[in-house]
Amino acid sequence: MCAVKTLSVALGNRSYPIYIGSGLLDDASRLMPHLVAKQVLIVTNDRVAPLYLEKVKRLFSGLRCHAVVLPDGEKHKSLETMNLIFDALIREKHSRTTTLVALGGGVIGDMTGFAAACYQRGVAFMQIPTTLLAQVDSSVGGKTGVNHPLGKNMIGAFHQPECVLIDVETLNTLPDREYRSGLAEVIKYGLINDKPFYEWLQENADLLLQRNSDALVHAIECSCSNKANIVAVDEKEMGVRALLNYGHTFGHAIEAWQNYTGYLHGEAIAIGSVIAAELSVSLGLLSQKDGNAVRTIMARLGLPTCAPAGMTADDFIEFMRRDKKILDGSLRLILLEAIGKAVIKDSVPIDLIKRAIDACREDVGR
Amino acid sequence: MCAVKTLSVALGNRSYPIYIGSGLLDDASRLMPHLVAKQVLIVTNDRVAPLYLEKVKRLFSGLRCHAVVLPDGEKHKSLETMNLIFDALIREKHSRTTTLVALGGGVIGDMTGFAAACYQRGVAFMQIPTTLLAQVDSSVGGKTGVNHPLGKNMIGAFHQPECVLIDVETLNTLPDREYRSGLAEVIKYGLINDKPFYEWLQENADLLLQRNSDALVHAIECSCSNKANIVAVDEKEMGVRALLNYGHTFGHAIEAWQNYTGYLHGEAIAIGSVIAAELSVSLGLLSQKDGNAVRTIMARLGLPTCAPAGMTADDFIEFMRRDKKILDGSLRLILLEAIGKAVIKDSVPIDLIKRAIDACREDVGR
Repeated sequence: MCAVKTLSVALGNRSYPIYIGSGLLDDASRLMPHLVAKQVLIVTNDRVAPLYLEKVKRLFSGLRCHAVVLPDGEKHKSLETMNLIFDALIREKHSRTTTLVALGGGVIGDMTGFAAACYQRGVAFMQIPTTLLAQVDSSVGGKTGVNHPLGKNMIGAFHQPECVLIDVETLNTLPDREYRSGLAEVIKYGLINDKPFYEWLQENADLLLQRNSDALVHAIECSCSNKANIVAVDEKEMGVRALLNYGHTFGHAIEAWQNYTGYLHGEAIAIGSVIAAELSVSLGLLSQKDGNAVRTIMARLGLPTCAPAGMTADDFIEFMRRDKKILDGSLRLILLEAIGKAVIKDSVPIDLIKRAIDACREDVGR
Repeated sequence: MCAVKTLSVALGNRSYPIYIGSGLLDDASRLMPHLVAKQVLIVTNDRVAPLYLEKVKRLFSGLRCHAVVLPDGEKHKSLETMNLIFDALIREKHSRTTTLVALGGGVIGDMTGFAAACYQRGVAFMQIPTTLLAQVDSSVGGKTGVNHPLGKNMIGAFHQPECVLIDVETLNTLPDREYRSGLAEVIKYGLINDKPFYEWLQENADLLLQRNSDALVHAIECSCSNKANIVAVDEKEMGVRALLNYGHTFGHAIEAWQNYTGYLHGEAIAIGSVIAAELSVSLGLLSQKDGNAVRTIMARLGLPTCAPAGMTADDFIEFMRRDKKILDGSLRLILLEAIGKAVIKDSVPIDLIKRAIDACREDVGR
């Protein structure tokens, strides 16, 4: 087993640790101090349950431990599915001192966290993320929620976990496409906030693609650490936290236009990141060289970099307007000034946005 | 118009004012400073809308104001109905700076507040309560939520409004039984925390039953003030705030046993208050005279004081165990030491609880 890294997300009396290592699911000692009482509900899905549920149940042996297995997939990230968590909590008479355990990817984490935020107006929860995306994104920051048929993550709460346990061994069972999708968010941290990490990613791309444990522990630690630093100064996303949405406004539009049945989240974010870099270049914020570097690193780690065929620039704009980041009608975008430095820009001309989108198409010669 | 009373609920940076008076719905000046941006969604129900929606819309003329009219009744206090609020918010493109306005009774206030807590992870809301119960109870404290088929208020959040506007004129359209139901919560504040107010209630019972404006402004002010003082020291109900649940553990059991189609909330709480007083006497906490006084004041204001025919003591215990206030299996009850002084008691013997319930039956001679 490689060394276990412990990272602290500093949020005053809602601070919590993230444990990152290999084989952590075999050791209960880290979780126990974070339980409020001897009651636990594990929330997972029908894809993760056969792989890890029994193992995680053993972590809580000796406690009143129940489990609820939800259907897998983003389309089940809804109030209706979340109700199954409430059903289980009430049926098994869980009190205000219970602890929910999210075992799975981002959908499970977001729904479990939101259920914990709402059950009896707030109970404790911990996260055991089993996808790379969940490990580097939703495990930090306390954003929880579900989708609405008309918009992603429209309904939710800020609710911080008691702790997060990241066992990189769980990534061995992750399908290749999903794994690479997670890498898009890893790369994002380098692009927006951490040039040395971006350079490390360039050098260690092969190790990462091979899912090397040590490389993964380092990449996850850097990702979580970058996110934790940003969240610590802006928990409720009034300012700099918006930088984490780099690539997301375009990416969400792609996901919504495809009705969440096309590109995976990270794939859409990879494309969105390339478009945002292109736009940054056309606004004179970013050098052409750095703009190209964004496309290169995404492609190097096996991610798509072109807007979906058939999705027009007008389609993008329409779906972007529906996104949460509308501020009284004007579009707010996250752009790059350099590799490692993102900025918030309001009122970017729609024409330039459309041109940047069209510059990121399969048929554009370069 | 009688004088307008302004009360402050002191909760640090979540503090907010409550305005109490007659004719306040004709004056927009109090609400305007509390709007975050020029976007408003009024949430009301199909009983209140014909009476007050146009009037309230006029308060917000000149703003982007939409309205959603929900079906009336506790049985619609559900995640499904709350979804209609989200539908309207997204359809009308409300951003994070929108303000929700709850126009109606406690159900509307609780659902609107919870929707505001969850929409885009939290937007502003204000309350215009139109029932006495909502004015003296749910307008203070920030408890929001919906019911689950297996339990009341099981799903919710703490979310404080920007302000509360109480126009006692809206009580003129309230059916008599609902009005008296609200008086049960008014009396509760006297019983648990404010003997002088209890004495004022004894003396002014007739004026209150006549819905005299000045008496109402005073009664509502005293009620909100008592609640605000308690909530200010214990926002998240870790301690003394539990005192506000006086009568409620028994009352909720009655409501649940009747499947929420029998006694109104305040009526059930009136009965619960009498049972809790009876239990306080049998435990030697409260004098027999004060125990009788609880029954007398409830009856004086037209409220029921006997357990429902057919609901056995065992039924009570079963439904009480399902209530939120289970603490790892043991029943926590709020009892009286004197008129004006409530206390929290853990581990009250079940036998004594059952005897107190059976002492509050129609056929018990006294």
